[in-house]
Amino acid sequence: MTNKMRKIAVVAPGSRVPYDVAARVQALVAKLFPGRAPEIYFHPQCLESHGHFAGDDARRTQAFLEVANDETYDAVWCARGGYGSCRVAEEVIRGLTEVARHKAYVGYSDAGTLLAGLYRAGFEAVAHGPMPADILREGGESAVARALAWLVDAAPETLEPTVGCEQRTAAFNMTILSQLLGTPLQPNLEGHVLMLEDVMEAMYRIDRSLFHITSNAEIRKVAGIMLGRCNQIPPNEPDFGMTEEEVAQYWCRRSGIPWLGRADIGHDVDNKVVPFGGALSKERPRGGIGPSLRHRRRATAAGPRRQP
Amino acid sequence: MTNKMRKIAVVAPGSRVPYDVAARVQALVAKLFPGRAPEIYFHPQCLESHGHFAGDDARRTQAFLEVANDETYDAVWCARGGYGSCRVAEEVIRGLTEVARHKAYVGYSDAGTLLAGLYRAGFEAVAHGPMPADILREGGESAVARALAWLVDAAPETLEPTVGCEQRTAAFNMTILSQLLGTPLQPNLEGHVLMLEDVMEAMYRIDRSLFHITSNAEIRKVAGIMLGRCNQIPPNEPDFGMTEEEVAQYWCRRSGIPWLGRADIGHDVDNKVVPFGGALSKERPRGGIGPSLRHRRRATAAGPRRQP
Repeated sequence: MTNKMRKIAVVAPGSRVPYDVAARVQALVAKLFPGRAPEIYFHPQCLESHGHFAGDDARRTQAFLEVANDETYDAVWCARGGYGSCRVAEEVIRGLTEVARHKAYVGYSDAGTLLAGLYRAGFEAVAHGPMPADILREGGESAVARALAWLVDAAPETLEPTVGCEQRTAAFNMTILSQLLGTPLQPNLEGHVLMLEDVMEAMYRIDRSLFHITSNAEIRKVAGIMLGRCNQIPPNEPDFGMTEEEVAQYWCRRSGIPWLGRADIGHDVDNKVVPFGGALSKERPRGGIGPSLRHRRRATAAGPRRQP
Repeated sequence: MTNKMRKIAVVAPGSRVPYDVAARVQALVAKLFPGRAPEIYFHPQCLESHGHFAGDDARRTQAFLEVANDETYDAVWCARGGYGSCRVAEEVIRGLTEVARHKAYVGYSDAGTLLAGLYRAGFEAVAHGPMPADILREGGESAVARALAWLVDAAPETLEPTVGCEQRTAAFNMTILSQLLGTPLQPNLEGHVLMLEDVMEAMYRIDRSLFHITSNAEIRKVAGIMLGRCNQIPPNEPDFGMTEEEVAQYWCRRSGIPWLGRADIGHDVDNKVVPFGGALSKERPRGGIGPSLRHRRRATAAGPRRQP
């Protein structure tokens, strides 16, 4: 594998990225992969600002398409969440070319809206996992390193522990999933283990999101629900009287969706990687922009983009 | 019309009702309708407490069914919103008898989940309007008096000004509508003027809710969207860069839904009444548990419940 094969583009489909993220991630990459560091290209759009967003809708769409449709990049890594993916996702997916199908996409939180649309459109290397801006968290280098280890080496220890070769998986922020149900971005999750996490949502909102998600006829076809961490839950007035796990179990019971326990994902530095869909081989987990992605490329209808 | 014909039951399908609401509403009713005051029955369930809720799901369901299926009540008035209707709405609707069809239902905010289900189930006298707990707002007596004037006299000045005899209408808190899309409670709003309001939601959440609502294929069949007030919007970090009206116009443009301007509804004392559906006669607006409801009763398949 040559360095040329390991180019990762970072774009911000939602909120603007703080200025120091790029330099810190670059430094981390150099330290983590001595002599074989992948090239990380932070698109200048990441730093732009338009009200709530990292550039207006047209600019965020253009930046995403620019790198996704450029065959020199092996992966598109969402810089951070915040809010804004839902404004660009449909236009982005309409604009993606065949080239864009042969790379990996990683993100979580708001970026899940885009991942949903990509997965619905049949993209095979879509994963819920840490983003560059996670480096700003205390101990955040470990999260960023995890996403990189998945992207570069398909390292199995980066995966949520229950991610297997046989069972299809998907992971979402539950508010984000709730807000895309019934839209043209809703993916088919039939037979998938659906992992859900959330952050900074009051218990009544977690309960309401789970009502909404588990009441959806398409979602009821999942193989089961696992609950990731619900972090920084604001106080509920009065006390809600149930924990997030009790609430998740309640809605699983009511909807007939199997409750499969806790998932090791969340808005935190321990957030593990959850590839969407199933593994293509029993030998190695999904992920990696090196040999494994080239392996996947061979398996696609379009055939290999390049020979290894 | 005898007093016996004007009995209104108050229940709390979501959050618990503060203790002094009942007495204050009773005093107001006596003052507003001297010699012909309707009887307002506050179900004891309103004061019960179970975690976040006014009693557990079974108790809230039972209380609603008890009064809705009792022919001595002419109307069911939701005491307040808060949160919890989505937990009981489907069970409530399954349990309603023919008797329940012949009365009026009024509420807003969280209670909209129940109104949605009732309207979907074909109930004809469902209205978005003030609730007893509005009396706790500054100047709140005017809001409560408005709901009563609609319930008792079908007073036309209680209605949102654009509510007409020809065009069907519906009104929702936009977060509540978003969270019931795709569930068995989603009503058919084809051809309706859809009025949306919200409270205490940040601009990015308002934007996201409107993405969700206007991206729904069924919602796109509405005649148009009117925006009510979005009150107490918390600060957006950074400033969102658009007002709620600009955001609503944006999503209408994107989705092809006609933008019909502002609606006189909101989480405040000026909240006007919006009956769901169309008027049954050109002579008088929908509403009223007196002659007009009896008029409607004659129009139902089941025929009149009582003779006037």
